[in-house]
Amino acid sequence: MNQIPAKYKHTTSQDNSFTILQYFPFLDWLRNYKRSDLTGDMTAGIIVAIMLVPQSMAYALLAGLPPQVGLYASIVPLIVYGLLGTSRALAVGPVAMVSLLVATALGGLELTSVAQYVQMALILALLVGIIQLTMGIFRIGFLVNFLSHPVLSGFTSAVAIVIGLSQFKHLIGVDVPRTDSMPELALFVIEKLPDTNITVLVLSFISVAILLYFKYFLKKHLTYFNLPDHIVSPITKLGPLVAVVIGIGLVVITEVDITSNVPIVGNIPAGLPEFIVPTFDTDYLSQLIPFAFTIAIVGYLESISVAKALASRRRQKVNANQELIALGTANISASFTGGYPVAGGFSRSIVNFAAGSNTGLASIISASLIAITMLFLTPVFYYLPNAVLGAIILVAVTSLFDFETIKHTWHYDKADFASLVVTFVAVLLIGIETGILVGAGTSIGLYLWRTSRPHVAVVGQIGDTQEYRNVLRHENTTTHDNILALRVDESLYFPNAQYLEEVVLNTIADNPKVDHFILICSAINFIDSSALDTLESLHYSLKLSNVNMYCAGVKGPVMDRLRHIGFVDRIGKDNFFMSTHEAVTALCNK
Amino acid sequence: MNQIPAKYKHTTSQDNSFTILQYFPFLDWLRNYKRSDLTGDMTAGIIVAIMLVPQSMAYALLAGLPPQVGLYASIVPLIVYGLLGTSRALAVGPVAMVSLLVATALGGLELTSVAQYVQMALILALLVGIIQLTMGIFRIGFLVNFLSHPVLSGFTSAVAIVIGLSQFKHLIGVDVPRTDSMPELALFVIEKLPDTNITVLVLSFISVAILLYFKYFLKKHLTYFNLPDHIVSPITKLGPLVAVVIGIGLVVITEVDITSNVPIVGNIPAGLPEFIVPTFDTDYLSQLIPFAFTIAIVGYLESISVAKALASRRRQKVNANQELIALGTANISASFTGGYPVAGGFSRSIVNFAAGSNTGLASIISASLIAITMLFLTPVFYYLPNAVLGAIILVAVTSLFDFETIKHTWHYDKADFASLVVTFVAVLLIGIETGILVGAGTSIGLYLWRTSRPHVAVVGQIGDTQEYRNVLRHENTTTHDNILALRVDESLYFPNAQYLEEVVLNTIADNPKVDHFILICSAINFIDSSALDTLESLHYSLKLSNVNMYCAGVKGPVMDRLRHIGFVDRIGKDNFFMSTHEAVTALCNK
Repeated sequence: MNQIPAKYKHTTSQDNSFTILQYFPFLDWLRNYKRSDLTGDMTAGIIVAIMLVPQSMAYALLAGLPPQVGLYASIVPLIVYGLLGTSRALAVGPVAMVSLLVATALGGLELTSVAQYVQMALILALLVGIIQLTMGIFRIGFLVNFLSHPVLSGFTSAVAIVIGLSQFKHLIGVDVPRTDSMPELALFVIEKLPDTNITVLVLSFISVAILLYFKYFLKKHLTYFNLPDHIVSPITKLGPLVAVVIGIGLVVITEVDITSNVPIVGNIPAGLPEFIVPTFDTDYLSQLIPFAFTIAIVGYLESISVAKALASRRRQKVNANQELIALGTANISASFTGGYPVAGGFSRSIVNFAAGSNTGLASIISASLIAITMLFLTPVFYYLPNAVLGAIILVAVTSLFDFETIKHTWHYDKADFASLVVTFVAVLLIGIETGILVGAGTSIGLYLWRTSRPHVAVVGQIGDTQEYRNVLRHENTTTHDNILALRVDESLYFPNAQYLEEVVLNTIADNPKVDHFILICSAINFIDSSALDTLESLHYSLKLSNVNMYCAGVKGPVMDRLRHIGFVDRIGKDNFFMSTHEAVTALCNK
Repeated sequence: MNQIPAKYKHTTSQDNSFTILQYFPFLDWLRNYKRSDLTGDMTAGIIVAIMLVPQSMAYALLAGLPPQVGLYASIVPLIVYGLLGTSRALAVGPVAMVSLLVATALGGLELTSVAQYVQMALILALLVGIIQLTMGIFRIGFLVNFLSHPVLSGFTSAVAIVIGLSQFKHLIGVDVPRTDSMPELALFVIEKLPDTNITVLVLSFISVAILLYFKYFLKKHLTYFNLPDHIVSPITKLGPLVAVVIGIGLVVITEVDITSNVPIVGNIPAGLPEFIVPTFDTDYLSQLIPFAFTIAIVGYLESISVAKALASRRRQKVNANQELIALGTANISASFTGGYPVAGGFSRSIVNFAAGSNTGLASIISASLIAITMLFLTPVFYYLPNAVLGAIILVAVTSLFDFETIKHTWHYDKADFASLVVTFVAVLLIGIETGILVGAGTSIGLYLWRTSRPHVAVVGQIGDTQEYRNVLRHENTTTHDNILALRVDESLYFPNAQYLEEVVLNTIADNPKVDHFILICSAINFIDSSALDTLESLHYSLKLSNVNMYCAGVKGPVMDRLRHIGFVDRIGKDNFFMSTHEAVTALCNK
């Protein structure tokens, strides 16, 4: 046992100790780097690179960009994040949700050439980076907490459907006109079904089969060989690589690309990305900014949630604001090196963690391997069918559709379920941008609605105890004709103050014998100005109708404020009691 | 003493007993009407009518409408409210704030003729009526509670300044161009100061002096004569009537209107208002609708607050939704009888109450007297100077500027003070409409911000008691190296769930000896889905770092939900304790 405990600084207020060292976390891990860290970092770096090559090309395709843009986005941004990030395991790079948002943002601009499209992606990355960096520096990352889990779940599930639907053109090998409207896109896809390129469909089918096998069945089969989990787990992540190799092999061997018009990736320019200063086209800026905000927030949310989950497993800390700074800088670097917006990927980060990533070095090793790929391996991807990339995206997003949470939320709380469904439907029917805003508004509105009619209970004494409970829930409670004791289970603030006053006045009007009213404040954590006014007017109204008002069990901080503003003196010091029992006992003897 | 109390229906849920009788409250008072009620109703009806004649003309002037429109709005709407309203004392008719909003709404339409202006006022009244009636029927009147008192106070004070400023042209007898921008209006008034019509200024000065004397000094002087309060109080309300009589007298005797160009009311058409079906001009509809919402809400708020205050003094009830229905119908009737939007006036209602209004009959008597005025007395007002009406408005709005609340809010709560100031400044600088929205958004945002970082305390045992308190506030607390007991003083929901997780994980990372974590839930009234997810992930993270998680003092309804969703089983039933002391004792012995 000890007196006054060690360090509880986090409980007193926001942790404001933020030194210059914290802006550069690599100084910390570099100084303390141990030889033993290297094995984990090497393994993790290599496995992530192997996953990242096909994924980054696939996500670039999803974003409507040439495949090399995805690879470019997997070099410098990874190095920057490796140096500045506080997570030891987050694997940054192109991710599905952000890529879809990029496609939506750029699709709305009515651009004519691919060069212009790439140019706008650079500007978007720059904007996203600036927004995240600013949020990190001004430490307002907490704002993203105002997106509730049901809203995010509804959003993610809807986005999964949108992404899946957007890949059908690659999977069946048809051209589908671009549209932001999901119902329209679905209609277009259905219209084009008769034009399906059977060869492409077969390729897609093979790819999906390989990917599903690796994702869901390989693990079980490998355990027959009694391999340890740290070997089995990375192997199961090789699905995309295997699909790519088999896809390329099939095309090369059968030459189907020429005979059956199978769309292939084609020429990828070899070499490292050049340093490019994005030229600003102010015409499109106002259209891009709202998307930049969504991408900045969604990208950050995906990153921070996985970073936190992984860090806590090793009792490490992740600094949310420094994460914003790291992601922001990574995005800015993407913009200057021919990439597009990046974020921390969910599945890649878990692989990175499982493969033993200890420091940011793992991320730097991945980047180096992608750079080597760009220098020497690009010709290999010439015959890679788009269908394989489409299959990779399709299988990746199936896990985004979160039926479990939908069911769970329905059982736990109907209001939360409503925000989830509203977000889901709004994203699908109105659009991604507006959908998430509608969802956030709904969840805040429903929360306010909930607190606006707090649980209020008339309490009575349980038998001979000092306990007072809801008379409507407990049978053997004793009350007094002239005393009304009411417990409010919510802080008092403007949306519920009027409601409380109504309940009290109506209950007293119905019980004309009452001449003592006790407000039980044990669950009241805060009373705002509006509620204070209401309490004053309640006190006044009760006085005019000859009912005395008392307060019981007021918490320390609330009492301090009430005393400071003179409310305690106006009501009368003797009208405040420590507990309900004390109040009732005193009033019975009056 | 008795077992199970009488009627606590109001505490269980919203009072849903709403019979057809409640839609027609006059059926109630008419059936039970007593001869003794008549004296009070007669006196109150007469005094309110005497106040209403000059006020309704003045407020019509403020709204930019001819004086008869104000008088028309004081006939049928009063009868309708008298029949449908649940308040026994609310005096409906033209009011300052609503009139200003009408002026702002119509001023923005760029109308060319007075006839068109009057026409638009009818449509506005119709829209306001429909909105209020709909809110009442669908029982969504509670929505106005989302405007906090500081926001309303900032709004009212800013509106007082806007109204005061708008009357200067009448008080100094100059023409000022119309503008919605307050800084611009102030500039216009200053520019026109050299053009002041001295005769008008003298008339204004005399009127203001009379009004201030009646408002602030007459009461003291009358008490010398030992008159009872129910006679003194009505007499002090005759200021506007006396100012009108003296104003007319001065103009008639000195004929200054001709020699010095003093603006006078001029010809008011005699006779009762005709039944008019407002012709809809869809061009302006989209511009009028937002204003109609503001007027509907502001008018309702002014009415309900005074109605509630007065009803509670006699232990009577006011039904908020029926009030909306009554006000809505009154506004619709105003629209069909040549009036403009009405509401329950604050000062008039207090006079009505003090003069003894017992039923809606008082309101009907007032209406009859205004009708008689319209039939026979309009020629009297021909020589009434506008300056007198301007003075009546100016003196009436001085009491709207609420310096006391501004000071009080500053002392009580800085966040509330911030919403007040933001609203005040936004109304003055941006405009009335946007101002109140900005204010409402600010107050909701600040509330969410407040609950997003709840008060969290590490607690320790006080001496040998069973009490556990904040170790940072109490000196002689005992804690254990391996146990961390944390109390959260707020319901857990999405904006604060992440924050809590961070505090817990950071505190545990700083205290590596901890292997039992107790979450004290006594102040938690609700846990939403997001917070539940966070608790699950917290439990998981803690488990991975070999810390056990426990909950103490979980409230009944919260426990029910946690049990239902399986959280209790996942954490382990034995990890839930009734109290902190029980938990700490059990864990010490482990």
